[in-house]
Amino acid sequence: MATVTPANLIEQLHWRYSTKRFDPARAIPPDVWEALEQSLVLAPSSFGLQPWKFLVVEDATLRTELRLLSWNQPQITDANKLVVFLGQRTTTAADVDRFLQRQCDVRGATMDSLAGYRRVIVNFVEQGWAAKDHAAWNARQVYIALGQFLCAAAMLGVDSCALEGVDTVAYDRLLGLDATRFTTLCVVAAGYRAAGDRNAGAPKVRYPANEIVERR
Amino acid sequence: MATVTPANLIEQLHWRYSTKRFDPARAIPPDVWEALEQSLVLAPSSFGLQPWKFLVVEDATLRTELRLLSWNQPQITDANKLVVFLGQRTTTAADVDRFLQRQCDVRGATMDSLAGYRRVIVNFVEQGWAAKDHAAWNARQVYIALGQFLCAAAMLGVDSCALEGVDTVAYDRLLGLDATRFTTLCVVAAGYRAAGDRNAGAPKVRYPANEIVERR
Repeated sequence: MATVTPANLIEQLHWRYSTKRFDPARAIPPDVWEALEQSLVLAPSSFGLQPWKFLVVEDATLRTELRLLSWNQPQITDANKLVVFLGQRTTTAADVDRFLQRQCDVRGATMDSLAGYRRVIVNFVEQGWAAKDHAAWNARQVYIALGQFLCAAAMLGVDSCALEGVDTVAYDRLLGLDATRFTTLCVVAAGYRAAGDRNAGAPKVRYPANEIVERR
Repeated sequence: MATVTPANLIEQLHWRYSTKRFDPARAIPPDVWEALEQSLVLAPSSFGLQPWKFLVVEDATLRTELRLLSWNQPQITDANKLVVFLGQRTTTAADVDRFLQRQCDVRGATMDSLAGYRRVIVNFVEQGWAAKDHAAWNARQVYIALGQFLCAAAMLGVDSCALEGVDTVAYDRLLGLDATRFTTLCVVAAGYRAAGDRNAGAPKVRYPANEIVERR
């Protein structure tokens, strides 16, 4: 098990910033990108239900169209990679069954042996606090994956920018999501900063730790 | 800049699992914990507004009481550290001003020079899509910090377990949050796995990458 040092982690999180200007000529190496995709696949979620999908948009024309739905922000076209983070609109007992079937496939259990666990999850999905708004619950899970992706990118030395301020309704239409179970939540551009991005050297604007972290 | 290799990242994310049994005798070294707190302080958020707080619960009696509000899950008392993730209930123009004042303090700008940027953010806060439900918007941001924390812990070789299934209303009452701007969203236990936690060696239950990641 090869871990990073505390100083290394802090250094990389300070190195990271919300990159506005990417170098369009510089590509993320395939093995690095594969690890970033794996950071999405392996992200934790409530009960492990993974109520998400991730669209990696490679088509240049589509990227240009999406930029127009994103306040014309250059990251959308100039970053080496663009990922649209999608959340499930609903969660049902069928999602629970699909997940438990996957558990059977991966771990060799039987659905019968998971019947009690199934009742717990289905009960929560149908009657727990999240039942009031499955889309909002699922969005939170997608943002776990977002946080993991941004952290993983920093650790790999890949620049990133998360964009919430895009026209998600128009994204859904353009990406053909309207009739699907998924909806656009946010977008991440990833690649390498252009020389001279003036935000790169700016000190981070964060509240002091003693205002943010309290002890009880 | 010392980054990790793709193989190292994937290895640590596989090593990570939702730890149910912690070793109560094993403490996270102070420098490692400091780095984990920094991963919270440095987490990205929409506009950088940081609509969150993190309570590190150290008092053993309080931990015991919280366990009773958490389906009696042993992680709450046995993990070396317990962090309650709080989100702001609302977001107002005053929050924007506080953030921009911080930007002035850190970067030496003046509020006058940020007037145009202030209008953009206040307009979004008051009239953008997030205005429909500030609490939900803020919760998403808190989950970015959650995702970053879980990833950072994995990279540092620290075990963790995120718990959404706690009685957040009772947490708020016990933690004295009812009259504050913050509300409990979720909890993370962090420390080191106990020998013999049967979940430690189980294969991860994740959908295949080609079902989760699509290309366009």
